[in-house]
Amino acid sequence: MSVKVAKFGGSSVADAKQIKKISTIILDDPTRKFVIVSAPGKRHENDFKMTDILILLAETYNNQDVFENYLDIIIKRFSEIITDLNLPSTLIHEIKDTIISTISSDLPYVRKLDAIKALGEDCNAKVISTYLESIGVNATYMNPKDAGIVVSNEPGNAQILQESFQSLYELREHHCDVLVIPGFFGYSKEGHIVTFSRGGSDITGAIVAAGVQANLYENFTDVDSVFTVNPNIVNNPKEIKTLTYKEMRELSYAGFSVFHDEALIPAFRRSIPVAIKNTNNPSLPGTLVVSEKQKQENCVVGIASDTGFCTLYVGKYLMNRELGFGRKLFHILENESVSFEHTPSGIDDMSVIIREHQLTPEKEAKIMKKIKEELKADTVSIHHNLAIIMIVGEGIMNTIGIAKKATTALTDAGVNINMINQGSSDVSMMFGINAEDIDSAIQSLYHEFFEN
Amino acid sequence: MSVKVAKFGGSSVADAKQIKKISTIILDDPTRKFVIVSAPGKRHENDFKMTDILILLAETYNNQDVFENYLDIIIKRFSEIITDLNLPSTLIHEIKDTIISTISSDLPYVRKLDAIKALGEDCNAKVISTYLESIGVNATYMNPKDAGIVVSNEPGNAQILQESFQSLYELREHHCDVLVIPGFFGYSKEGHIVTFSRGGSDITGAIVAAGVQANLYENFTDVDSVFTVNPNIVNNPKEIKTLTYKEMRELSYAGFSVFHDEALIPAFRRSIPVAIKNTNNPSLPGTLVVSEKQKQENCVVGIASDTGFCTLYVGKYLMNRELGFGRKLFHILENESVSFEHTPSGIDDMSVIIREHQLTPEKEAKIMKKIKEELKADTVSIHHNLAIIMIVGEGIMNTIGIAKKATTALTDAGVNINMINQGSSDVSMMFGINAEDIDSAIQSLYHEFFEN
Repeated sequence: MSVKVAKFGGSSVADAKQIKKISTIILDDPTRKFVIVSAPGKRHENDFKMTDILILLAETYNNQDVFENYLDIIIKRFSEIITDLNLPSTLIHEIKDTIISTISSDLPYVRKLDAIKALGEDCNAKVISTYLESIGVNATYMNPKDAGIVVSNEPGNAQILQESFQSLYELREHHCDVLVIPGFFGYSKEGHIVTFSRGGSDITGAIVAAGVQANLYENFTDVDSVFTVNPNIVNNPKEIKTLTYKEMRELSYAGFSVFHDEALIPAFRRSIPVAIKNTNNPSLPGTLVVSEKQKQENCVVGIASDTGFCTLYVGKYLMNRELGFGRKLFHILENESVSFEHTPSGIDDMSVIIREHQLTPEKEAKIMKKIKEELKADTVSIHHNLAIIMIVGEGIMNTIGIAKKATTALTDAGVNINMINQGSSDVSMMFGINAEDIDSAIQSLYHEFFEN
Repeated sequence: MSVKVAKFGGSSVADAKQIKKISTIILDDPTRKFVIVSAPGKRHENDFKMTDILILLAETYNNQDVFENYLDIIIKRFSEIITDLNLPSTLIHEIKDTIISTISSDLPYVRKLDAIKALGEDCNAKVISTYLESIGVNATYMNPKDAGIVVSNEPGNAQILQESFQSLYELREHHCDVLVIPGFFGYSKEGHIVTFSRGGSDITGAIVAAGVQANLYENFTDVDSVFTVNPNIVNNPKEIKTLTYKEMRELSYAGFSVFHDEALIPAFRRSIPVAIKNTNNPSLPGTLVVSEKQKQENCVVGIASDTGFCTLYVGKYLMNRELGFGRKLFHILENESVSFEHTPSGIDDMSVIIREHQLTPEKEAKIMKKIKEELKADTVSIHHNLAIIMIVGEGIMNTIGIAKKATTALTDAGVNINMINQGSSDVSMMFGINAEDIDSAIQSLYHEFFEN
């Protein structure tokens, strides 16, 4: 039995018009049995996201501040959706009661916050399943507890427990044609609502796809596909038709924000293909993420970039003769809870690439002092304002000429290359440049790899 | 008072003809007060080096094996030199007595081995100072103990002690015009002869240069200069006129064998310039190694290469989120006494470049097992047969286009680039390629950087 899991993001379920679109999509393919929905997202650029208002509601209520206007905004938004979908007004009373009983419960704040955050998805799932029923679909709302989504007890950062997958598999036999499951949260063994990290509807979708052993996990969003480069840097860049999980991960790492970085892991682990599609343009093929693909002539599939990095440089004469130097350096960073991205090293030099947000001036000074004193380094310095470019494609390591093309494109754009790291990963090649050069660098690379 | 230290390598003092050449060199410049000499080296390609025969003598004597023929070879070699220099035959009797009393002493073997190894330099220094006196130079033999060269008590791997430098400085006031000091050994505080690591006459020279605060340390050898690339790969490559210590070190690291890798450190630490000159062609300028030099248009000064490397690859999904992964990996290597050269790392991958001679198949298997089990890595593999190319030059990091030139040259030669490591060192750029491609790679790079 072929079965699909379709996940609809915030903008795909933002109002009645969008909900009608997704209903058409669901009806269009009888194998779309599992539907995961987000909370209502933005309807236009300056709109609010339901989840953000729910967080404000929780905070103001907790601080004994004025919370009523936030409650009104939430109710009004759901009311509009329900009215526009011609659903009975009892539904909005039900939603209002649920919200009020949740905010006024005597749960500790972190628990209550998770329960309130979950309401955006949960109420929207109820609305959507009711609408589907109203147009004659044999659909039902399925609470994550009933679906068997059991998670670790870490508020705001739930991790799926293995036992969930067996329970989810049994849902394949459910008598309804469509099960509408709210994304973003599960239940701990103790019965508490616990949310995933932000962007967590993608996680729920991947978990359900893994559990029901879906043939395809469709991730509906508001873009036509994953692009070869950031569309904010290059106008109308080419779309990526197929990419592998590994390529996807390397692209996501440095700035591709279609996905919450690690959301797809449960699907990846079970080799379930993932389709990225546009709710507003569902006939387009979108981008397919697979575990393996055929070798292609131009093996470069995409170019990702991100700013906000810095380099910690450590120089010590005869460093390479000193057994344990690298380990001790990493230990100092670990003690300050600083994780690193890359460690290009020379004979007597070692650089550590770090995401800048992890450092404060105090932490920076402390780390540098420790390295100087404990490792007796000759030179310790930190260079800020680094951008990372990742050229990604399966086979990149064994294709002659990729480095030539890339360095030529950067040089022709007048960009100085501070760093090259090639060879550790077989699907990517990394460059470090000054952040201010990022646009011209990416434009030139795009031209070289995708327009020639 | 301007003062120079002149060190003469094995081939520069291999026979009477060569000793006459160095005497002319010494006489030619009255500031050449300190002369460091090696043991007689090779006179032609298939010749033996005195030090090698001394080691065989020590070993055979110790094993109660036939040693007399080695003794004969040594005596005959010194006899020839002494006769050809018209020196009194008492000198050869003295040398013979010293050798016999050293091998028959009741020192423990490791001590005796060091004492015997030191005889090549020591006897040669006596011969050379006697010759200089015979031609009217106010020269004297100076034993390292009398010179104040005090070293750590590690047979075969002596380290200079700081107090030596003060004693050496006092030698500036010595009444003789030329002091001939044997290279390669010093004395421990307990009075034992202790040798430096192999190539140790360079070390003695650098120590004396540092101690007497020489204006120049001249290192006389049998090549005209340091070449821009390995002359075994490119015919008649260009010479390097000036290079900095940092450039020298990066070049020495990967295959430039003019020097014992770290021999020059004492001179470097005190910013003493080092001239590399040819005893057989002393009027040529040679190569000057300095602490700083002016920025040049073509900043690439040389290209070094070496084979005998391997890559240990470790892949683990979500590695970059795992605090301490790198440290733990290094710890496993450290426990097996394996030091590493470079560690290019990706998001979920880490490679460690290791000199192959450090590994045995058993050690390799043990390390791989530990990494799999203790770090729960997904993939662990070792790739052998890697060559490293180092493109060296001050300013390489801030010069636009170097990477383009290098990758173009390699690509045009049909060479696949397994690894690029740029940015950790500001004076070098590293490439990893398959060892079988090394000649065509170097030839193409040489053409690109030095012939265009």
